[in-house]
Amino acid sequence: MSRSAAGLLRDLIVYQIYGANTGVGKTVVSTLIGRHFVGRGGKTRWKVHYIKPVQTGPVEEHDDRYVARFAKHSTSTLVKYPEPVSPHVAAKGSPYLFTDDMLVSRLSAKLREDARGASMASGHLGVTIVESAGGVLSPGPSGRPQADIFRPLRLPVVLVGDHRLGGIASTISAYESLLIRGYDVEAIVCFESGKLGNVEYLKKHFHPLGIPLFEIPKIPDVEGCSRQDEIDKMHSYYDTEARSGSLYSLGHRMVNRHVARLKTLNTLPSRTREAIWHPFTQHKSIQSSEILAFDSAYGDYFQTKLGEREPGRDSKTKYMPEHQVLYPAFDGSASWWTQGLGHGNPRLSMAAAYAAGRYGHVMFAGATHEPAVQLAESLLKGMENPRLTKVFYTDNGSTGIEVGIKMALRAACKRYGWDGSTEDIGILGLKGSYHGDTLGAMEASEPSVYNKKVDWYRGRGHWFDYPEVKMRNGRWAVEPPAGMEEEFGPVQHFEDINDIFDFDVRGHSPRYEAYIEGVLDKLVKEQGRKFGALVMEPVLLGAGGMIFVDPLFQQSLVRVARRYAFGPSQQTAEEEAQLDALSWTGVPIIFDEVFTGLYRLGRFSSGSFLQTHADISVHAKLLTGGLLPLCATLASQSIFSAFLGDEKSDALLHGHSYTAHAVGCHVAATSLTELQYVARSYVWHACRKAWGEKGVGEDVGTEPRSLSSAILARAQSRRVWSMWSPDFVKTISQHERVESVITIGSVLAVSLVDRSKSGYASNAAAGLRDSMMYELTDDRYAVHSRVLGNVIYLMASMTSTQNDLSAVQRVLLQKLKVMTAREQEMESRE
Amino acid sequence: MSRSAAGLLRDLIVYQIYGANTGVGKTVVSTLIGRHFVGRGGKTRWKVHYIKPVQTGPVEEHDDRYVARFAKHSTSTLVKYPEPVSPHVAAKGSPYLFTDDMLVSRLSAKLREDARGASMASGHLGVTIVESAGGVLSPGPSGRPQADIFRPLRLPVVLVGDHRLGGIASTISAYESLLIRGYDVEAIVCFESGKLGNVEYLKKHFHPLGIPLFEIPKIPDVEGCSRQDEIDKMHSYYDTEARSGSLYSLGHRMVNRHVARLKTLNTLPSRTREAIWHPFTQHKSIQSSEILAFDSAYGDYFQTKLGEREPGRDSKTKYMPEHQVLYPAFDGSASWWTQGLGHGNPRLSMAAAYAAGRYGHVMFAGATHEPAVQLAESLLKGMENPRLTKVFYTDNGSTGIEVGIKMALRAACKRYGWDGSTEDIGILGLKGSYHGDTLGAMEASEPSVYNKKVDWYRGRGHWFDYPEVKMRNGRWAVEPPAGMEEEFGPVQHFEDINDIFDFDVRGHSPRYEAYIEGVLDKLVKEQGRKFGALVMEPVLLGAGGMIFVDPLFQQSLVRVARRYAFGPSQQTAEEEAQLDALSWTGVPIIFDEVFTGLYRLGRFSSGSFLQTHADISVHAKLLTGGLLPLCATLASQSIFSAFLGDEKSDALLHGHSYTAHAVGCHVAATSLTELQYVARSYVWHACRKAWGEKGVGEDVGTEPRSLSSAILARAQSRRVWSMWSPDFVKTISQHERVESVITIGSVLAVSLVDRSKSGYASNAAAGLRDSMMYELTDDRYAVHSRVLGNVIYLMASMTSTQNDLSAVQRVLLQKLKVMTAREQEMESRE
Repeated sequence: MSRSAAGLLRDLIVYQIYGANTGVGKTVVSTLIGRHFVGRGGKTRWKVHYIKPVQTGPVEEHDDRYVARFAKHSTSTLVKYPEPVSPHVAAKGSPYLFTDDMLVSRLSAKLREDARGASMASGHLGVTIVESAGGVLSPGPSGRPQADIFRPLRLPVVLVGDHRLGGIASTISAYESLLIRGYDVEAIVCFESGKLGNVEYLKKHFHPLGIPLFEIPKIPDVEGCSRQDEIDKMHSYYDTEARSGSLYSLGHRMVNRHVARLKTLNTLPSRTREAIWHPFTQHKSIQSSEILAFDSAYGDYFQTKLGEREPGRDSKTKYMPEHQVLYPAFDGSASWWTQGLGHGNPRLSMAAAYAAGRYGHVMFAGATHEPAVQLAESLLKGMENPRLTKVFYTDNGSTGIEVGIKMALRAACKRYGWDGSTEDIGILGLKGSYHGDTLGAMEASEPSVYNKKVDWYRGRGHWFDYPEVKMRNGRWAVEPPAGMEEEFGPVQHFEDINDIFDFDVRGHSPRYEAYIEGVLDKLVKEQGRKFGALVMEPVLLGAGGMIFVDPLFQQSLVRVARRYAFGPSQQTAEEEAQLDALSWTGVPIIFDEVFTGLYRLGRFSSGSFLQTHADISVHAKLLTGGLLPLCATLASQSIFSAFLGDEKSDALLHGHSYTAHAVGCHVAATSLTELQYVARSYVWHACRKAWGEKGVGEDVGTEPRSLSSAILARAQSRRVWSMWSPDFVKTISQHERVESVITIGSVLAVSLVDRSKSGYASNAAAGLRDSMMYELTDDRYAVHSRVLGNVIYLMASMTSTQNDLSAVQRVLLQKLKVMTAREQEMESRE
Repeated sequence: MSRSAAGLLRDLIVYQIYGANTGVGKTVVSTLIGRHFVGRGGKTRWKVHYIKPVQTGPVEEHDDRYVARFAKHSTSTLVKYPEPVSPHVAAKGSPYLFTDDMLVSRLSAKLREDARGASMASGHLGVTIVESAGGVLSPGPSGRPQADIFRPLRLPVVLVGDHRLGGIASTISAYESLLIRGYDVEAIVCFESGKLGNVEYLKKHFHPLGIPLFEIPKIPDVEGCSRQDEIDKMHSYYDTEARSGSLYSLGHRMVNRHVARLKTLNTLPSRTREAIWHPFTQHKSIQSSEILAFDSAYGDYFQTKLGEREPGRDSKTKYMPEHQVLYPAFDGSASWWTQGLGHGNPRLSMAAAYAAGRYGHVMFAGATHEPAVQLAESLLKGMENPRLTKVFYTDNGSTGIEVGIKMALRAACKRYGWDGSTEDIGILGLKGSYHGDTLGAMEASEPSVYNKKVDWYRGRGHWFDYPEVKMRNGRWAVEPPAGMEEEFGPVQHFEDINDIFDFDVRGHSPRYEAYIEGVLDKLVKEQGRKFGALVMEPVLLGAGGMIFVDPLFQQSLVRVARRYAFGPSQQTAEEEAQLDALSWTGVPIIFDEVFTGLYRLGRFSSGSFLQTHADISVHAKLLTGGLLPLCATLASQSIFSAFLGDEKSDALLHGHSYTAHAVGCHVAATSLTELQYVARSYVWHACRKAWGEKGVGEDVGTEPRSLSSAILARAQSRRVWSMWSPDFVKTISQHERVESVITIGSVLAVSLVDRSKSGYASNAAAGLRDSMMYELTDDRYAVHSRVLGNVIYLMASMTSTQNDLSAVQRVLLQKLKVMTAREQEMESRE
């Protein structure tokens, strides 16, 4: 996906001219604007440029020629096709292939060229008019609508309205299509519409939206005129109109909005520092200049304006001419683990808008709507877990976990006859686990720096030690924690990551199970403690530091937790008789798939890696493809039954106002279907193949989206693989500064050697992160990432391409090299 | 706003024909479809109708005439203007005023008429084609875009694509404008486009979206033909094409989608019962037939399909012909207290789509974006609370309250040197208060049925008694709880609700303050308990049962809590020196404005009614105008400072992945601005006037939206008023079955007399609720509402009109009468 910088250059005012339809007068408007700025009075000298990115037809009819004739300033066309048809038709018959990226890069380069020499300080400014072709959504050479093709540049728009019959409708629709794609329409220009009243109507329509409309007199009637007469007439038209009040106001608006956008970007960090309390942030040490201002985002890339800490400022690599205000940075944390289908994905925008238009939010207690049911059914189907039958909606992972815990504790208390209101019922979990920041979710995590100063936190449970999976020096290993070889056995090596998950070969682990039983005996039998749930993140503990747990240990834990006698059952014979093979036993098992589920690790369900089925499963983050918060807690029938009773108070008395909000559910249902298509597409096939999987990907781009078991099956991979290249993973694991690496699905985490004795270590990962973001490489590639202690991690979205990921890998390796060299230099000085 | 039933009739297949632009052949397509069904083979007999809702120009050129000539079935035009211009222009010059409501009602009535006689069982089905005018967004007589005008009917759409140059763009844009408004586009029809390739392109574009495109041969060239020749040629064209494969497939699609929609609505409740775990619901007793299926919603109305419990089925009032599948019900709980700007508000849909298109979600830790900052600034400004300086975002009221409590406890523990990890720090609150369902929020509420079976709940705090405000028998009163006259004084009566809030006259209450201090002395001095916050909902306790607390008591509580010595300060002299008049003292004061704030009670801040300023203020529900979840916790500088330190662990280590999600923030910023405009508009003026306020409303419809202090000031009312009529409130309070009534802002709550001894009481409110929903009145008005114990409450959105609310009031009074009569009849039988 394109990683061009958005088209915002400090001293060059760039606008894209879109038309409400073909034939509305875009070229005339472009010419007028050009001429206006050339002749505009005042202290500023304007250098004007005109660009037609794509032109079809014979050269003598090209728009740039027309503009050049009447406007006398620089004009250019980037891509030309001789056939006088739509670009996507012309491109098919042409030997020249122009991808969207090429087109955008070319336009981007041209804008930088136009910006050269312009300088606000010296009173020389540039204006570049980029004229689009046809209507807003007319296809470009690749066949994609041009508003999608040019979206990475997100140029501000002057929309030429349609002054003809039907033009009110087409102008507003065109505007809406731009808005959905995140464009800022800064002005509407419309030719006189006379009795039709388009101008008056549109003016009134756009006024409350803060968008002015500028009316322009009709183009002179040149029918029957000689060629020379026509040219003279038009010259005179342009002479007069370029100096009209309308054009002055329009010019003013164009300049003002450009300046306002720069001002917004410049002041955002300080305004943020003033008004915002950031999550997980020690504000004492944060300066405005350290706050990243995002203008927008598209695909895998943020468009970023930095404060004083501009890339290139304190490095030797000059990133860009000073004109360039924004630069793209790879969203290397998938925006806190949420991103799946790319920023600004028009399909998700449309899904959100449709549900908003059809429902808004409709209350869900005692009621229902299609998106909520559709999503619930998709989740239950996709999980392929026969235990799960019911879906409870909340707003985020933390609230979803609270619900899961309430479910499990109630079921356990009921079966074992415990009184939760007086007895301490704990949960079982893993060391380093994390489940969210509301109190109930926090209580399910062991004491750590995150809850140390949460005054109501007590930590209710026991958290197990476990062996970890790591790649060290190019080899996969399962390692016991330091000093626990006796409990877990010695380090085991594996040639292939798949072997670690091959439970047929590895078998059950009597050692693991004995260890777990021993711990439980101590807790339950010796200390008399009570437990009401086992809660864990399958495979990968996220916030705990991207810890890859030996899946066999997790499987063993589930097995033991299910057969262990946590207490004598107090159920009636009738209740006992209702239990079946899918009922929970021991304690209810909760899989927190908030981070790991829904294809983050390459599979619909991360629990499936453990080849065991949870009784309760929690899903959020990727659920909406990375657009907005929503959470689903899935539960089994035997959990659900624990809440059936004659009293209202027997029910699960939990709910949020926006429970199952239609916008979230519809976006999520759309997103799940898209994710399943991506999962069986060519995009993922290359990665799977690199990790040793056979079979081919499919071209799914044009298939109607629907959820079928067949599609799901083809999307499921039974192998373990990663979106990161196996060679790269091996290489980096062999680097002297790298302690170990883990990767699975879209996640890569690099643990740096702890050199705390030498004094550099504690912030080595943070230094690497900053270096990847601020000290740009020769190919000007910035990567935004996050660290957890001495671990730096990277996360792709499900639609990241191999090209993009290769670039990210290159940057990481390069910056690691630079960091190491610097450290050595400093050490040698001491 | 229109309360027409959506246009879904069981045995009448209705489609609206929209055009991608004017002149694309809508009338020809309508004619073809009509002819096709007339002549369609098979067992079913089709009765075809054609409706042109609005027609301008001379009668001989009307579309219905054209269709009638070629299709030979019933045709009609609902509204005619002789002038051959756009309807909105023609309407201006016409003496006949057609409001949108009238137009929709007329069309709705015509559809019911068309449905008469049709019956699936007997193999006689109807097809009605409703042809729109111009493009999708062409203005109707009122000037609103017709897709907005007809939205209440939400007819399925056949979109006629544009086969001409530029038609690819205009067709997709038209489709997107329909989608944003919640329409289902079921088919695209497009005339041959030849070399332009529109048909091929559009087919490919819509295929993955599941929408088929049907190509139709060009209309015969009749230029130069005689009138008769033209007619003959067209007849022959229609003869052939109406029987073409394309038309058969299109007809099939139209029928299938109609049947599928019916099936979805019919099966939604049972599918819901299968897959959904509802919030706050005892599932043991719920049958599928009791689950309301919402097809959609618009303005204040749900479009509802009921199961077996159809309205009219067990009442004498026949509501509608059996054909009508959906009926509108007033959303009387404002969709669980969230709704502010109406369901399906296109401005909010567009805001959501724009932010999704521009950002998707972008990570917020260490970063920022415009919508988050804009919203934060709007909130801080709108609150007019000089203490508040910082905004922390979370996803819903419950998580926002958890954050508020974490903030307050930390600040208190720090100042008083308490160790929260070992000492029990409680909160102070009011009896009957409720703050959310996550554990931390639950802990701040007193024990009740809601947390009785939450196994980790302990209830950490003390909850005060207080006097209540009620209207009884037409008179406002402040009443002490039973048996507490000594503590709170005897019942006080007030002529005007404003007098209750007139603290200048009422003065401080030494009695209230002495009582509060006495309680605190007992808790703190005698029992040694520690408290870290005062948490309360200003004015109205929502989930506790719509309890209207004496505002003077709440003010007294804040005053005492601020001056009481909860412990000796452990701050350094330096820290003490930093305290100023805006710093918290005693304990931090948290106002939970989640339900009461943002104009729910008629003012931006409900805390402002108490004439005191909180240190922490929590806002959700109405924040996004009723579209999706988002919460903002606002805090003062002295609270913020408590988290500044050298350690990361000193910071507020709380955050959700979608913190400050751009979609939510932008929708909320848009919504706040809209709410402020509504608050000073004519809409509210009538209510304010009825409650004794002077001054006039303004026509704000066409003003550009921006937040300025002037606008805010004009939106603020210093008086207390309600959207419900004062006469109605008085009348209902005098009803024999009514114990008392409260109203303020958009909220009305009616407490029924507790007749539990006679055995009818416990479900009287529920009976009233069901009667309002299922036993429809003569004017067929259904109201969806919620009850809390023996309280039935109603809540308007901020844009509800007087007309709608009057209707709701009528229904409530009428049903109350019916209920009373029934009870008397039953009693007399005994």
